[in-house]
Amino acid sequence: MKLSKSVWQTYKEVPAEAEIPSHQLMIRAGLIHKLGSGLYSYMPFAIKVIRKIEKIIREEHEKIDSQEILMNVVTPAELWKESGRWDKMGDLMLKFPDKAEKELCISPTNEEAVTDIFRKSVKSYKNLPVSMYQINTKFRDEIRPRFGLMRAREFTMKDAYTFHMDKECMDKGYAAFKGAYEAIFTRIGFKFSAVEADAGDMGSEDSQTHEFQVIADTGEDLIIYSEEGNYAANVEKAKTKRASLEFDKTGGALKEVATPNMATITDVCQFMKKPEYQSIKSLVYTISKEGEEETVLLQLLGDDELNELKLKNALGADSVTPTLEHKLKELSLPKGFIGAVNLPSKIRVIFDGAVDIEAFYVTGAMKVDVHFENFCPKRDVQNFEVLDLRLAKKGDVTEDGKYTVDEKRGIEVGHIFQLGDKYTKAMNVAILDQNGKTKSPLMGCYGIGVTRVMAAAIEQNHDENGIIWPKAIAPFDVYFALIGKSEEIKNTANDIYEDLKASGLEVLFDDRKAGPGFKFKDSDLLGLPLRVVLGERDFNEKGTLEIVNRRTGEKSFVKKEDLVNEVQKKLKAL
Amino acid sequence: MKLSKSVWQTYKEVPAEAEIPSHQLMIRAGLIHKLGSGLYSYMPFAIKVIRKIEKIIREEHEKIDSQEILMNVVTPAELWKESGRWDKMGDLMLKFPDKAEKELCISPTNEEAVTDIFRKSVKSYKNLPVSMYQINTKFRDEIRPRFGLMRAREFTMKDAYTFHMDKECMDKGYAAFKGAYEAIFTRIGFKFSAVEADAGDMGSEDSQTHEFQVIADTGEDLIIYSEEGNYAANVEKAKTKRASLEFDKTGGALKEVATPNMATITDVCQFMKKPEYQSIKSLVYTISKEGEEETVLLQLLGDDELNELKLKNALGADSVTPTLEHKLKELSLPKGFIGAVNLPSKIRVIFDGAVDIEAFYVTGAMKVDVHFENFCPKRDVQNFEVLDLRLAKKGDVTEDGKYTVDEKRGIEVGHIFQLGDKYTKAMNVAILDQNGKTKSPLMGCYGIGVTRVMAAAIEQNHDENGIIWPKAIAPFDVYFALIGKSEEIKNTANDIYEDLKASGLEVLFDDRKAGPGFKFKDSDLLGLPLRVVLGERDFNEKGTLEIVNRRTGEKSFVKKEDLVNEVQKKLKAL
Repeated sequence: MKLSKSVWQTYKEVPAEAEIPSHQLMIRAGLIHKLGSGLYSYMPFAIKVIRKIEKIIREEHEKIDSQEILMNVVTPAELWKESGRWDKMGDLMLKFPDKAEKELCISPTNEEAVTDIFRKSVKSYKNLPVSMYQINTKFRDEIRPRFGLMRAREFTMKDAYTFHMDKECMDKGYAAFKGAYEAIFTRIGFKFSAVEADAGDMGSEDSQTHEFQVIADTGEDLIIYSEEGNYAANVEKAKTKRASLEFDKTGGALKEVATPNMATITDVCQFMKKPEYQSIKSLVYTISKEGEEETVLLQLLGDDELNELKLKNALGADSVTPTLEHKLKELSLPKGFIGAVNLPSKIRVIFDGAVDIEAFYVTGAMKVDVHFENFCPKRDVQNFEVLDLRLAKKGDVTEDGKYTVDEKRGIEVGHIFQLGDKYTKAMNVAILDQNGKTKSPLMGCYGIGVTRVMAAAIEQNHDENGIIWPKAIAPFDVYFALIGKSEEIKNTANDIYEDLKASGLEVLFDDRKAGPGFKFKDSDLLGLPLRVVLGERDFNEKGTLEIVNRRTGEKSFVKKEDLVNEVQKKLKAL
Repeated sequence: MKLSKSVWQTYKEVPAEAEIPSHQLMIRAGLIHKLGSGLYSYMPFAIKVIRKIEKIIREEHEKIDSQEILMNVVTPAELWKESGRWDKMGDLMLKFPDKAEKELCISPTNEEAVTDIFRKSVKSYKNLPVSMYQINTKFRDEIRPRFGLMRAREFTMKDAYTFHMDKECMDKGYAAFKGAYEAIFTRIGFKFSAVEADAGDMGSEDSQTHEFQVIADTGEDLIIYSEEGNYAANVEKAKTKRASLEFDKTGGALKEVATPNMATITDVCQFMKKPEYQSIKSLVYTISKEGEEETVLLQLLGDDELNELKLKNALGADSVTPTLEHKLKELSLPKGFIGAVNLPSKIRVIFDGAVDIEAFYVTGAMKVDVHFENFCPKRDVQNFEVLDLRLAKKGDVTEDGKYTVDEKRGIEVGHIFQLGDKYTKAMNVAILDQNGKTKSPLMGCYGIGVTRVMAAAIEQNHDENGIIWPKAIAPFDVYFALIGKSEEIKNTANDIYEDLKASGLEVLFDDRKAGPGFKFKDSDLLGLPLRVVLGERDFNEKGTLEIVNRRTGEKSFVKKEDLVNEVQKKLKAL
């Protein structure tokens, strides 16, 4: 493509709202255009990236016999009501009436639609397993869309769905998709981890689910991992233990200590000259379950954090939220000085499993500005439960105690779930099995954020000058810049451009009337793997062109007749 | 693709609402799935057709240097308000508020969005012309969606937009697109016409616009054409004349004739023994213009019909509608017996240009059950205008009088317009020209209904047994059916399947456990260009396979070793 014939504009400035590199660089490199809040249009070079991502996705789906379909962007409420999700999806789902006053929505996901297709098209176990996918526009009505394509409202997603007669078949299908996803993200050129995740509302408890996380400092997700232990999980889901701690087991009687204005663990432990893990952190939570609310007091080691998801799952709650201050006052709980001793009896007390209930701790004394020393849970609290509540963190060890785990940040670009029979049951899908009995098939679902993949690739591959595209999804292979004005050199440039193209390379030919500084800046910003420069002076004096590797900056000079071969070689070596 | 691994289900019955062949056949052949009113999902084989159509479109757009972008499905109201179309688009545009109470809509078209992109990206005449296109989901909230994909609410469209500094450049761009469209529809395999059309609200009066009409009996549009005269136009836009008529110029005085219960032209003319063109058809219309309403009496030859669009354009009206009966009574106009004599003075009288105002006609006498004989417009009406109002029809002649025109029906699959500066002006787009003066660029826009193309291909190519896909967009080249049960023949079939695929053919392998009748019915219904049958008995006895041409039914028998060559040859010859 010749730049003189292209609609391409780069920018020096970015709007203040562009906080992360991919957002900034996509705006600066003229890849996206903001049409409205969380609404981005894709410019020609971004389209080329998207098409390459889609091609890789399609090829890997074909390999595992998944068939492409296309469901609707707009779906009718009836389907969502059948599954019971019309009211449960929350307000990320954009709903509206049509002209005939029928309720519609823009699909944020398509389990209902695909189940409707399945029940119409498949009647016998002989036709299972079935695997279908689509690449389509999705919409989530984020109230504060952020980070450009990372958390846009309108985005492109690949979503796949499988149907199986039994768990064994679902596991096999799941493994095939896990393999396909690994192939896709490897081909794209990502450093990524498949991490254990939480199925949330999507699946049942024993169902497998993995997130595919692209490793990047700006990632929104925290991953707990051990390279040697071959372990990786989203922090929400991570099962680790604390490395062994020396607890104080020799404390005496419970003793009040004045701690004026010391309402934080750090302040109190510094004052008491104790390590933070020898204190108890008291958290008061409101648990909602089937319309009923309950207040619980959570007791964790002072330097641990609560994993709300563990709490929610352990109690089978619909939601868990920190109890509001006015409610604490109502319950006579003095914020900053709460503890399990002298607690109103109606409050349920739950200790985290990492607390040694026979050890002695600092804890709140239920009076403003007062803490206890020598609090021993087993001795001092009458009724309590023990549950696993703490958030995993760096320095923990794997469940078998063998490996210490570390933390890294990730961007979720894919997520695979075993859904079980949740949707087929709710939507009355019945298939006859070998024995003539009807059964609700088991489902798997598998998503990739196509446009987010593009942004994640930039988060993982950029420097201060711009994007560095992984070869497989770069909009072009080569940025070919002509620096020169004579008719002769222009003709030579044109010949070279045609030669490069004829050899199968995708070439962006910068034939604009502009100087080298301008062109090289644009070239670095756009980040194609290789830059080839035809400089009039060098070419006339030495007969050479320059090849620059965008990632390493490495330069080499080649004769015109060797150019195509050299470029091909360097590209292959990337 | 092996059918045993595919989600494919054909149907014998179609819902009553499926009125036209493409709708019926796409349902029966399991190509589409109805998810809701006017909402269709595309099943795997339909996706293959769509991808082939899209590929042809992309290739032809690349040839004319149009660059692919992707705008948003959901767009903010602000943009539409800038152009003034937020209120004008009518209720086909689905509008709704988001969570932040900002108004959004699902784009039925994208002039505003592309103009917003243009004004951000292009600042100088040096970068013009600019040409961009997208293939994207569109939505039109039809209250009565009909005809399957023909008039669905959600559909896929290709829309392109060009920007130019002057009319000459716009004409050049327009010609390039007209050529590209001809190439696209020729490659798809359509019998089509590029016909002159009406620009409606889209353009100005002198702007060019053409519809691309696929010729089919079920088409919603009527095309007036002359093969020899190289003329084709949508009936709404067609400029033709009546073939010469012998008018009665020898009539006497105006004379009342009792015509009891004869309120139609046909009844009256039969009774009076006159040809219908020697009577005047009186039509009363209400004209709306800038909020004001006016009643007009239209006078056409008895066998002519009104072209409402001509009326609307000639009067510069916002809308024209037949006056309602209660309003006729208010005005004392006796339905069926209305004429221009004895008319209330406030009603404006307009004669169609085909009426010879010096000739004598039968017309309504403004009394129930009475007509006039010998009505001579020039003599008997004091104030009247003459405008071109009649609808062109079969039997007319071209404007130069040389060729007689005929009618055929068409399906509009593409439409190209010159928009001029309508949007760039409204949205304050200013580009500096060579002389440093700012100018609003001129635009062209160019649409193809991608999913409608698929339906139109079926309307034009089917028989009583099913679809007959044009080769270029068939989901596969070959339907390969195995009729046999032994392991040996299954292995042979697999080998043949692999051979066919290896030669680059796209093959649908019917390896299902089913008899020949079942398989051949499905094969005819799906309509792939060629069917290859491996029948166990024939193969064992004679060593031959059968090749059947779907369109002609022509059969031939070939040896296994000649199969690939023969199939390739027959496919090429299609």
